[in-house]
Amino acid sequence: MPVELSTTCEVPITFGDLDPMGIVWHGNYVKFMERGREHFGRAHELDAMSIYAMGWSTPIVRSVLEHKAMLEYGDIVEIITTFVPSPAAKVVLRYRIQAKGKGIVAAIGETTQVFLDRERRLQLIAPAFFQEWKQRHGAH
Amino acid sequence: MPVELSTTCEVPITFGDLDPMGIVWHGNYVKFMERGREHFGRAHELDAMSIYAMGWSTPIVRSVLEHKAMLEYGDIVEIITTFVPSPAAKVVLRYRIQAKGKGIVAAIGETTQVFLDRERRLQLIAPAFFQEWKQRHGAH
Amino acid sequence: MPVELSTTCEVPITFGDLDPMGIVWHGNYVKFMERGREHFGRAHELDAMSIYAMGWSTPIVRSVLEHKAMLEYGDIVEIITTFVPSPAAKVVLRYRIQAKGKGIVAAIGETTQVFLDRERRLQLIAPAFFQEWKQRHGAH
Amino acid sequence: MPVELSTTCEVPITFGDLDPMGIVWHGNYVKFMERGREHFGRAHELDAMSIYAMGWSTPIVRSVLEHKAMLEYGDIVEIITTFVPSPAAKVVLRYRIQAKGKGIVAAIGETTQVFLDRERRLQLIAPAFFQEWKQRHGAH
Repeated sequence: MPVELSTTCEVPITFGDLDPMGIVWHGNYVKFMERGREHFGRAHELDAMSIYAMGWSTPIVRSVLEHKAMLEYGDIVEIITTFVPSPAAKVVLRYRIQAKGKGIVAAIGETTQVFLDRERRLQLIAPAFFQEWKQRHGAH
Repeated sequence: MPVELSTTCEVPITFGDLDPMGIVWHGNYVKFMERGREHFGRAHELDAMSIYAMGWSTPIVRSVLEHKAMLEYGDIVEIITTFVPSPAAKVVLRYRIQAKGKGIVAAIGETTQVFLDRERRLQLIAPAFFQEWKQRHGAH
Repeated sequence: MPVELSTTCEVPITFGDLDPMGIVWHGNYVKFMERGREHFGRAHELDAMSIYAMGWSTPIVRSVLEHKAMLEYGDIVEIITTFVPSPAAKVVLRYRIQAKGKGIVAAIGETTQVFLDRERRLQLIAPAFFQEWKQRHGAH
Repeated sequence: MPVELSTTCEVPITFGDLDPMGIVWHGNYVKFMERGREHFGRAHELDAMSIYAMGWSTPIVRSVLEHKAMLEYGDIVEIITTFVPSPAAKVVLRYRIQAKGKGIVAAIGETTQVFLDRERRLQLIAPAFFQEWKQRHGAH
């Protein structure tokens, strides 16, 4: 059975993250997802710069955010990033964004990345390194 | 037949919008949608602050972005915002984001907003003003 | 007598620019200065990308912002960018940031840029193109 | 002799922080200063929200940034925030921003905040709580 690949990181909220309602402006959640994605990448050998060094860029082609609750000043944002197995030549990650210690999910997000080669051509078959990565991590 | 409610606005790309690939960082598209949404709101009497003055806040509960092509330095971003009729107590807007004069869609986005009253209670029935607004604009 | 080189551009304020006090978050003024700088550059043949194509990058080495008044939702930000003549190998620009039609200066800013060559070596003498540019514009 | 009041915090650099040169966009340093300021505030009982609860807001009226070197992808940004004693009714903080473990200062910054009361009137004499805070911390 495949193991669930997941990491958790934390980001404090700063004053500039807030909107006039005193809650975190929704547009900042994109940054929380990026933070989670990079934390996951460093932890599991799937970071954008290493992939780039191998000859591929991995642009985001789709992102979805569902907001469930608010994040407030003083909250520590906890971002749980999970790899979503897929047979396609894509990297799909799911994010749970929540205030640490509050037990309430603030948002659920998902990003989809594709592989482009140096000439920016879309790869319909996942690069060998990614196939091996999935094998190695039991994430098919 | 309902008329399509739509507005177009333009935003220049600045250096700080770019990522290391020299294209607009995907996270900035959230701002383009906000710019489009506010431009639409001012043009069609549906701006957040006027709605707030009537007693409602309209947080975004869902946003989706599909990236199709890149935006580059020197591009003028054109944001076409269209009202998506819905019987629910929601404001759904769709965005086409493109480089002006290039004829290529860079991204398609969609946001869903709900109505909360002053006590932050979700409204299951759209406020009267919004029902009237839809009538007035032929946007059911 | 040297002519004052100056341009004015306008940027609407969006909801995401505001802080919990309901005014524009001070950190966003950096973007207003960038917007003004790029507008000035395009108008007066001094934009970063053209300079880069000639072999130079022009990083900002110093920026100062003095806040005098607030900018609020609904304001159109007017950014007046003025070239500050200097004998040094530097580009110094000054910014007046104000709410259009309100007659109150919200902030005064200044940025200093230096010239680096492709090997990122600081130029102590201004590149020839910039000397000519200053001659041509009467801006010594 | 007054003790130097200072805190250090760390922030990872994310892809979205970078500009097309592959280095951290200068505009993001404002966020680093904010991060340092809030970290200092929480550590030394001088955070904006507690001050606000006592009846004062503390807007930034002046900020200066001097860039000395670049920050790159993979760097952990270290922000050292130090209180600058002043007899005036102001909070002056200085920031040293550097890549952790590299021994090179990337930027030096300074912010000046003033005290406004609930009616947004500038205080020419520092509020009593701040005078006591300075006494308590030996920071005159």
